[in-house]
Amino acid sequence: MNFCSDNVTGVAPEIMAALIAANYGTAMPYGNDEYTQRLEALFSELFETAVTIFPVATGTAANAIALSVITPPFGAIYCHPASHINVDECGAPEFYTGGAKLVTIPGERGKINATNLAKVLAKSGAGVVHHVQPAAVSITQASEAGCVYSALEIHQIAEVTHAHQLSLHMDGARFANAVVSLGCTPADITWRAGVDILSFGATKNGAMAAEAVVFFNRELAETFSYRRKRSGHLFSKMRFLSAQLEAYITDSLWLRNAAHANQMAAKLAAGLASLPGVQLCYPVEANEVFIQMPQAVVKGLLDDGFQFYPWEEEHSTIVRLVAAFNTKEEDITAILEAAKAHSVKAFQI
Amino acid sequence: MNFCSDNVTGVAPEIMAALIAANYGTAMPYGNDEYTQRLEALFSELFETAVTIFPVATGTAANAIALSVITPPFGAIYCHPASHINVDECGAPEFYTGGAKLVTIPGERGKINATNLAKVLAKSGAGVVHHVQPAAVSITQASEAGCVYSALEIHQIAEVTHAHQLSLHMDGARFANAVVSLGCTPADITWRAGVDILSFGATKNGAMAAEAVVFFNRELAETFSYRRKRSGHLFSKMRFLSAQLEAYITDSLWLRNAAHANQMAAKLAAGLASLPGVQLCYPVEANEVFIQMPQAVVKGLLDDGFQFYPWEEEHSTIVRLVAAFNTKEEDITAILEAAKAHSVKAFQI
Amino acid sequence: MNFCSDNVTGVAPEIMAALIAANYGTAMPYGNDEYTQRLEALFSELFETAVTIFPVATGTAANAIALSVITPPFGAIYCHPASHINVDECGAPEFYTGGAKLVTIPGERGKINATNLAKVLAKSGAGVVHHVQPAAVSITQASEAGCVYSALEIHQIAEVTHAHQLSLHMDGARFANAVVSLGCTPADITWRAGVDILSFGATKNGAMAAEAVVFFNRELAETFSYRRKRSGHLFSKMRFLSAQLEAYITDSLWLRNAAHANQMAAKLAAGLASLPGVQLCYPVEANEVFIQMPQAVVKGLLDDGFQFYPWEEEHSTIVRLVAAFNTKEEDITAILEAAKAHSVKAFQI
Amino acid sequence: MNFCSDNVTGVAPEIMAALIAANYGTAMPYGNDEYTQRLEALFSELFETAVTIFPVATGTAANAIALSVITPPFGAIYCHPASHINVDECGAPEFYTGGAKLVTIPGERGKINATNLAKVLAKSGAGVVHHVQPAAVSITQASEAGCVYSALEIHQIAEVTHAHQLSLHMDGARFANAVVSLGCTPADITWRAGVDILSFGATKNGAMAAEAVVFFNRELAETFSYRRKRSGHLFSKMRFLSAQLEAYITDSLWLRNAAHANQMAAKLAAGLASLPGVQLCYPVEANEVFIQMPQAVVKGLLDDGFQFYPWEEEHSTIVRLVAAFNTKEEDITAILEAAKAHSVKAFQI
Repeated sequence: MNFCSDNVTGVAPEIMAALIAANYGTAMPYGNDEYTQRLEALFSELFETAVTIFPVATGTAANAIALSVITPPFGAIYCHPASHINVDECGAPEFYTGGAKLVTIPGERGKINATNLAKVLAKSGAGVVHHVQPAAVSITQASEAGCVYSALEIHQIAEVTHAHQLSLHMDGARFANAVVSLGCTPADITWRAGVDILSFGATKNGAMAAEAVVFFNRELAETFSYRRKRSGHLFSKMRFLSAQLEAYITDSLWLRNAAHANQMAAKLAAGLASLPGVQLCYPVEANEVFIQMPQAVVKGLLDDGFQFYPWEEEHSTIVRLVAAFNTKEEDITAILEAAKAHSVKAFQI
Repeated sequence: MNFCSDNVTGVAPEIMAALIAANYGTAMPYGNDEYTQRLEALFSELFETAVTIFPVATGTAANAIALSVITPPFGAIYCHPASHINVDECGAPEFYTGGAKLVTIPGERGKINATNLAKVLAKSGAGVVHHVQPAAVSITQASEAGCVYSALEIHQIAEVTHAHQLSLHMDGARFANAVVSLGCTPADITWRAGVDILSFGATKNGAMAAEAVVFFNRELAETFSYRRKRSGHLFSKMRFLSAQLEAYITDSLWLRNAAHANQMAAKLAAGLASLPGVQLCYPVEANEVFIQMPQAVVKGLLDDGFQFYPWEEEHSTIVRLVAAFNTKEEDITAILEAAKAHSVKAFQI
Repeated sequence: MNFCSDNVTGVAPEIMAALIAANYGTAMPYGNDEYTQRLEALFSELFETAVTIFPVATGTAANAIALSVITPPFGAIYCHPASHINVDECGAPEFYTGGAKLVTIPGERGKINATNLAKVLAKSGAGVVHHVQPAAVSITQASEAGCVYSALEIHQIAEVTHAHQLSLHMDGARFANAVVSLGCTPADITWRAGVDILSFGATKNGAMAAEAVVFFNRELAETFSYRRKRSGHLFSKMRFLSAQLEAYITDSLWLRNAAHANQMAAKLAAGLASLPGVQLCYPVEANEVFIQMPQAVVKGLLDDGFQFYPWEEEHSTIVRLVAAFNTKEEDITAILEAAKAHSVKAFQI
Repeated sequence: MNFCSDNVTGVAPEIMAALIAANYGTAMPYGNDEYTQRLEALFSELFETAVTIFPVATGTAANAIALSVITPPFGAIYCHPASHINVDECGAPEFYTGGAKLVTIPGERGKINATNLAKVLAKSGAGVVHHVQPAAVSITQASEAGCVYSALEIHQIAEVTHAHQLSLHMDGARFANAVVSLGCTPADITWRAGVDILSFGATKNGAMAAEAVVFFNRELAETFSYRRKRSGHLFSKMRFLSAQLEAYITDSLWLRNAAHANQMAAKLAAGLASLPGVQLCYPVEANEVFIQMPQAVVKGLLDDGFQFYPWEEEHSTIVRLVAAFNTKEEDITAILEAAKAHSVKAFQI
């Protein structure tokens, strides 16, 4: 059983069905198909406001192209040190922007906060030619620590962001998990709270390879299509990206998938945390569990064949376990029982 | 009936079946899955030599990342004026290389030739600091005019290319059509003729979105994976790219698909060319037909609902018609009959 | 005697004196000195309109940074095939723009013309995502063939340029020679004719290393200072750049220098053209002479120790001779006498 | 009296004399002059080893082009948080490398140390496709805090650097001050200690605008000349850069200038530090004094017309005072007397 990441999963049946259905007949290429052309209305309805939307296939593409439209080459992007754009994209934002700088804002639980942001921006060197110029703030919802920003927290960050004439980007690779966790509407934690552009993730939550870049500030969208084409992210058979996105938001599939993943993560976290010597690193607010466990338990589970990643360092006793849209309850039960057995054995000695 | 391009088609049934099959269970992400790991051996067998292979989703990504590994920012890439990399990728090679220059080599039938290349390279300014430095030659097989390079032609180009210490890249968006047309092996027109890197296209010939960058000169591959990741082209659920490529080359599906497309194009070309006032622009050596027809015939067909592109200029009487892996013989018959009817009507008056 | 280029000369005495004078005392760095701060008013007066001005040290920097503020990474810059930005800057515009494409417009005498430009722009692919997007037109005054654009020609080019919402840049490495040649004001052939940005050259005409980027469309200047800093072209001891520029335009030094160079070139051209078998390639409208001469004359002069470049090809009998601000009349006399002697000898046989 | 920076000074008389002398006659452009061609031998002698050398006009150009030859676009450059390349060049390294990332290594006195570097490199993600790849280490000698690295410290850093197959760059904007401070040879703290490339500064220590990029690892120099040209840093009248550098190292001018600056800084530091409530922030090992003084003293000096920068924050009581090659002893005396007077007044109350 594989708890390494939500990207080890396959495709949700509803989305695979949509791909099969979309395979009928011919369709004009590069987004001039009916699937793609429907998306804007569908996403505008979902977000309760008129949006401009661009499908792409990967989260890195979504984030980096989005950031490139709001950040000049001499710009600065403010983000959390642990953010995906800073750590896990091999410099994609720097590549797409033509060499902007990512400036990190520390914060608890993988989140930046308005106070820290304001402090850093107060010394940002705006208008001083020797320094890179503040351009964008990027936050991750749910965060890399599996925690969520409240609508209020986002609103406060947006206020600081906009007071400095910057744009606010949200990396929503696990946006669905955050929406479910907060029990809010998608609008509540995006444009209503001040987000300008959202990377709306689908891949980790049941798509094959599909993300939507959603512009709430539609004026910012002007150059996106050229940047997407130029980077090889404009698909000729675009209908197959768009069909995934359509199926993903139809009948709330995305929320149902995320709700399941969150529940499985919560159950997993609760079960593990009840064992002696086990400590959750962060509250489990989405579908990721960061947890410190006795060495014997970690090793025992790995020896049993359960798959998950040690966190930050090899052989760490802090590990990450991720639940997905299709994680089976019986798999949670299985790992919990195995963990308990290793725990009992370890503490008997 | 849509003859606009081979990318208006959907996915070949064998490839869709492979996607469905690949959706079973979990798989490690980013290419650490069994599908992807099988590819190197499969492609090495197909090409009769050890190759290094990277799946990506689009032809533009394949071309641009491939060129970026052999071209420094101050480099020159030699290509045909009509080549996709020069005209149809919104500057992707320039983006990926960090600002290299595409220098065009004219030639008949969408092909450059060794003589013209040698002449241009003789004045290339190699070693002179004021000029961009020769780095790569890129040829398109089949060409943008629907013609093919013979093994000998490629060999001659490769000799000039390598004599100047440049690398030879082949854009094989329609590589299958060329192989079938020439009746050769894939090896014959790639590494045996001197090609260093091939963008091996599958999307236009039945895949959903899949291309393989094939390195025959494996030393050149060193930085590819970082550049792919950094551009957002490393798919987390990579198995779904790799499964397409595997199905594509299994049981010669790629050659069967291309053979059908080529036959349909040949039939279409022969039928249209037999009409009065109709002139083929180029020999039809692959699956594309460039043809000049009387205005009345062009207009008549468009009014009938047949879809195809005027070439180069709006309202041109030169048009392009493309046959695909799943073009139906009855559709060819239908358009030929309609064309004949419009022709008769036009010439009666 | 060296006729290779105007950049083989040293510094005009007035400018060297200005450098010595500027060396008194301390001055705030990076342009916050009185020399630099005076420039805007001085150049506004010179050009009879309010301008924004940035000193830089080289023509390549002036051109490339100027172009980068008006051209997005996915943009196209239209220029003559022989232009310095296209041929002699090792891809600087591509580097500074982040990978834009230079599209060449052929034309006589090193000049593009409005008709050719309009034809190319009519097929530019503006708004089509597959193609780089038209952004800028760049013309060279005087041209690479030593010819000048009339105010009318520039006006016509500007009309086409602006009708397509592009910006017009002028590479004025030899702007002084053109102004003198035309007998016009600097305003006549720049903003009054529709030029948005001028690279105002001084180095070739007596400065040590100084050029001014002059914005007539001042809104375009917004990001220049960051791009200049970021490329290492913001000098800490800026007063020494600015003092050169100030001296250069004081008491019409720049026009006097250029007038002398033009006169010397005219005398040289007239003298050589009177010899048998000698043919001027272009009218000599500035300070450059492109001329075809009998092999024996070319060889004889080189053997005598006169220095000049064969043009386009090694051992060409077409050569370029350039006169400069400090070319001595006696040197012109000397080379003309030597040429006559070689000519007589050659034709005697 | 201006203590803001060493770049508020003019040009040393010996260097101005060299510029005047270099202005005699013609010289071939772009470095094909005798001044430039002499430099390699002169610098090889100075550094007691064969070096490759490139003159440029600014420190930012020297650093950024140097870093770009050793860092791929997907690379990481390790440096101190306060380093000029990280803070004061508006993203020049990111621009020149095509988007590399600067990763900061904290350390006392503006210096990184081998231990911290090794710790960070141990977790660098080398070989992992998701992360930028370690490429270069850059240290500043003298540091941004006015302190110097000993030969041993550099050696230890170089060992870690090379053990990870990275290259070691030294930003030597104040290299002369460090050499004098350490009483060592230039070789001792560069190639003998493991430095691969040095930005050898001259501008801050008496040149008009001249720096030399010195390659000890000469194989790394291969692409430098193209990158310099392409960025507009290849001067046509190069002799005027080279003449500055030649004069700078002739008869140890550079060391005499630096020795004077260091002595003036030492005297200034000692005098100020003797006042009550005054605290040096760092040992004064070169020509910069970072010092905390009572508000009344800072304000009093500024009101008197002495010029210097508050450090890090506006109205800070921590200020920086910089001595230069031509700082007069009487100016030091003057500011010390003024400071004493303000101090007496402040403490009387």
